[in-house]
Amino acid sequence: MDAYKTLEALSKQATLLEGIEGLLGWDQETYMPPAAASIRAEQKEALAKLAHQLRTSSAYEDTLAMMIDLDSGAIREKSLSDEQKAALRAWRHDFVRLKKLPSSFIQEFAATTSRAIFVWQQAKQENNFSLFEPHLAHICDLVRQKAEYIGWRHHPYDALIDEFEPGCTTSEIDILFGQLLQAIPRLAAELAEGSRTISVEKGHIDLGRDEQIALARRVLECIEYDFSRGRMDLSCHPFSSSYHPTDCRITTRAEPHGLFMQALTTLHEAGHSMYEMNLPLEHYGTPLAQAISYGMHESQSRFWETRIGRTIHFWRFFYPIAEKMFPAKFKNVTIDDFFRANSRVTPSLIRVDSDEVTYPLHIIIRFVLEKELVRGTLRPKDLPEAWNAAMKDTLGIVPPSDREGCLQDIHWSMGSFGYFPSYTLGNIICSNLFETFEVAHPDWTTRIETGDFECIKTWLKNGIWRHGRRYTSSEIVEKVTGKKISSEPYIRYLSTKFRTL
Amino acid sequence: MDAYKTLEALSKQATLLEGIEGLLGWDQETYMPPAAASIRAEQKEALAKLAHQLRTSSAYEDTLAMMIDLDSGAIREKSLSDEQKAALRAWRHDFVRLKKLPSSFIQEFAATTSRAIFVWQQAKQENNFSLFEPHLAHICDLVRQKAEYIGWRHHPYDALIDEFEPGCTTSEIDILFGQLLQAIPRLAAELAEGSRTISVEKGHIDLGRDEQIALARRVLECIEYDFSRGRMDLSCHPFSSSYHPTDCRITTRAEPHGLFMQALTTLHEAGHSMYEMNLPLEHYGTPLAQAISYGMHESQSRFWETRIGRTIHFWRFFYPIAEKMFPAKFKNVTIDDFFRANSRVTPSLIRVDSDEVTYPLHIIIRFVLEKELVRGTLRPKDLPEAWNAAMKDTLGIVPPSDREGCLQDIHWSMGSFGYFPSYTLGNIICSNLFETFEVAHPDWTTRIETGDFECIKTWLKNGIWRHGRRYTSSEIVEKVTGKKISSEPYIRYLSTKFRTL
Repeated sequence: MDAYKTLEALSKQATLLEGIEGLLGWDQETYMPPAAASIRAEQKEALAKLAHQLRTSSAYEDTLAMMIDLDSGAIREKSLSDEQKAALRAWRHDFVRLKKLPSSFIQEFAATTSRAIFVWQQAKQENNFSLFEPHLAHICDLVRQKAEYIGWRHHPYDALIDEFEPGCTTSEIDILFGQLLQAIPRLAAELAEGSRTISVEKGHIDLGRDEQIALARRVLECIEYDFSRGRMDLSCHPFSSSYHPTDCRITTRAEPHGLFMQALTTLHEAGHSMYEMNLPLEHYGTPLAQAISYGMHESQSRFWETRIGRTIHFWRFFYPIAEKMFPAKFKNVTIDDFFRANSRVTPSLIRVDSDEVTYPLHIIIRFVLEKELVRGTLRPKDLPEAWNAAMKDTLGIVPPSDREGCLQDIHWSMGSFGYFPSYTLGNIICSNLFETFEVAHPDWTTRIETGDFECIKTWLKNGIWRHGRRYTSSEIVEKVTGKKISSEPYIRYLSTKFRTL
Repeated sequence: MDAYKTLEALSKQATLLEGIEGLLGWDQETYMPPAAASIRAEQKEALAKLAHQLRTSSAYEDTLAMMIDLDSGAIREKSLSDEQKAALRAWRHDFVRLKKLPSSFIQEFAATTSRAIFVWQQAKQENNFSLFEPHLAHICDLVRQKAEYIGWRHHPYDALIDEFEPGCTTSEIDILFGQLLQAIPRLAAELAEGSRTISVEKGHIDLGRDEQIALARRVLECIEYDFSRGRMDLSCHPFSSSYHPTDCRITTRAEPHGLFMQALTTLHEAGHSMYEMNLPLEHYGTPLAQAISYGMHESQSRFWETRIGRTIHFWRFFYPIAEKMFPAKFKNVTIDDFFRANSRVTPSLIRVDSDEVTYPLHIIIRFVLEKELVRGTLRPKDLPEAWNAAMKDTLGIVPPSDREGCLQDIHWSMGSFGYFPSYTLGNIICSNLFETFEVAHPDWTTRIETGDFECIKTWLKNGIWRHGRRYTSSEIVEKVTGKKISSEPYIRYLSTKFRTL
């Protein structure tokens, strides 16, 4: 028990520093004077280095190794509670990964991607893939090297996914995504055909800057987002970040766009934020107060965005509220017409602009390509061609330019290989959970229509939030739903929802 | 030279962490969700501890001692430039002070004052000095102990002032303040008599929340405050803080108050901020990129507040601008009447509400009392009586309650003994500098009337800002003005300005 307390203290100290680094990142995107960019990079680097030193120190290693075998993962300290044993497994997972990467490699990776992000922006702007190609090639080499450092059995990509989805493998994702690939392209084609007759016009309500901020705030008030522990500010791209369960922040953007998207983006970020806010405070500094994985996090944001926000029930509640806020913006459009216009299915070139049905196809394309880039069976210089071919095969459309093709996302320039699947895993997990939620709360639609979101929060808190990393994402899905994770609920949801629209 | 570089690197690392701690303080006062107060205290403490460890480490001590004798202050490394030698002296000054205080003492001091601040707030609210008295007594004991740790020759108060005004002694302040005490009470009485006939009404222009923010921003725009390196936000009490010359922030308040005060407060904070912004970037992390002292800092804020903002010339420029911003708020009042109404002299019970002439008397009262509290010749329980007697003697008025008397300021509850003199030293230094500035720029009044503030900034930058801590405050006054620091210019300024009004 003393060893556990020692590790807890060391880990808490590192967590404090990581939290401060996160806050510096938030400040950078919201309020920092522009000229401070360079000193800010130094400040963040200093904190990251201190936290890294703590997490890889011999004190940390020795204390951890007293309680758990670092090689096999077998628990040595039998007197611990199940919760504490789970924490040890998570601590070990992170420690082993961290220790495998030499500092010199981490530095080279950081320097390379920091340059690559800059070049990618330029390449995208100028629609010039050849500018970015050598940087991508270098990153692919480093990412392969990273996989070698970490170690893998079946596919080097396994070593990369594990950063975002601890315990998850390439072949598991192959199966989940394979199911989607069988069902969704056909469904998407059918729905796109049906969407042709839906008027887009009726879904558009453009808001000005201040109106958007007011709308986002109203959405948060409606779901009783806790402003004593959270806040909302403006940034270029909306994000959620948190530094402690009592300090969770989201941002929204202010450049003109529609009311529907603003409401959904807010629900999405609030979903992330409420997860962090409801992690158990008393375990702060340990894995028991951390979110499970990127996919699990995304399942929570998608829960609020898609399963609450993208329903006619939410709009029966919220449309009149928004209308009262901005009466001049509302024409004579029924809620049903407004909702239908915002639920059209049309294949898009751009991932972030796509509808719910075609979105996972964008992810699958990236997953397949990045596996090949990592394996080395796809050369970076052949990426544009492979991208366009995959778009044609899967979505039936071909980007007229790389800017709207393989240059659209920032992820690869950041070296974030293995991240993309989390988006769709989020939707899959969310759908698995939701089928159980519906059984527990068969009246959920009427509750939402009357603005009662409490039962949703309580259900998520008890089922997921309060456990931190006690379980892996597949364990928690099984614990909550009684079934193994599968893509069926997600396919069922998409087919049912869009076919009945 | 290698030792210098090593020390520079260690000091820079500590400075980075101290800057981050400062930013966390800013966030706490501006945007932090309220529930995060407790984790924020832990975050700040963790950073302060890391910085303290660095600044008192044996690596730091050994490197410093290679170049300068820690006991005598004699420079050992002769090959250094004069600038570097000055940096060494400042480093040594801070190091020696820091090393003298045991960690256990620092912890007790922090814990005691943190409780005392809380009790002081309550005592002030309830007008109950006896609540605060035992805490003040404990603080006085600790402050005395602190002076013993630091060491002193003539007065224990010397050891305390030195924290805020390196190199300055009690007897120097005795002389400077003695001169003021001879001249100002008589001047104040004369001016108060003359002020009776001035209509207060004509000086009042009340602004709402958003108007105040807009006004403060306009003031900053007028003096070309650099928004690429700075920003302005809202907080309960206006303050200025900085974390690097590229990241300097000020705040303003939004609760309703008058236009005149809002403009002056903004100029005051901008004065602090521009000093920090113009410290030499290339020396960041060393004393050559630090401000000289609290008094010197205050001299810069007072320069902008009093010598620019509290002149008819500034209002000839700014009154029409403000009138254009809020035409409905302006009645038929001439600039002269507006300015005169805002330049009345009336003794006030409250320091922060006082006019320019009586303000230094409030400081002198505190200076005299805190010297006695530190020496032990005044017992904390006798403070209210001593306070009231001093007010009667010096300002001719007696507070009807301790809330408006000895409980009005937060400083003593924070253990900040030795801080108060800096306010008036600021005014004294400012006046010394200004007489030279006037000679260099005899057209300054017309420049201000046309909104040209560039020559002021350039003059301050060359004379003071760019030197960091290369010189002490008395050295720099002598360097700039060619004369020793004295209270005469300040007395001259007050008499001339207010007698001609």
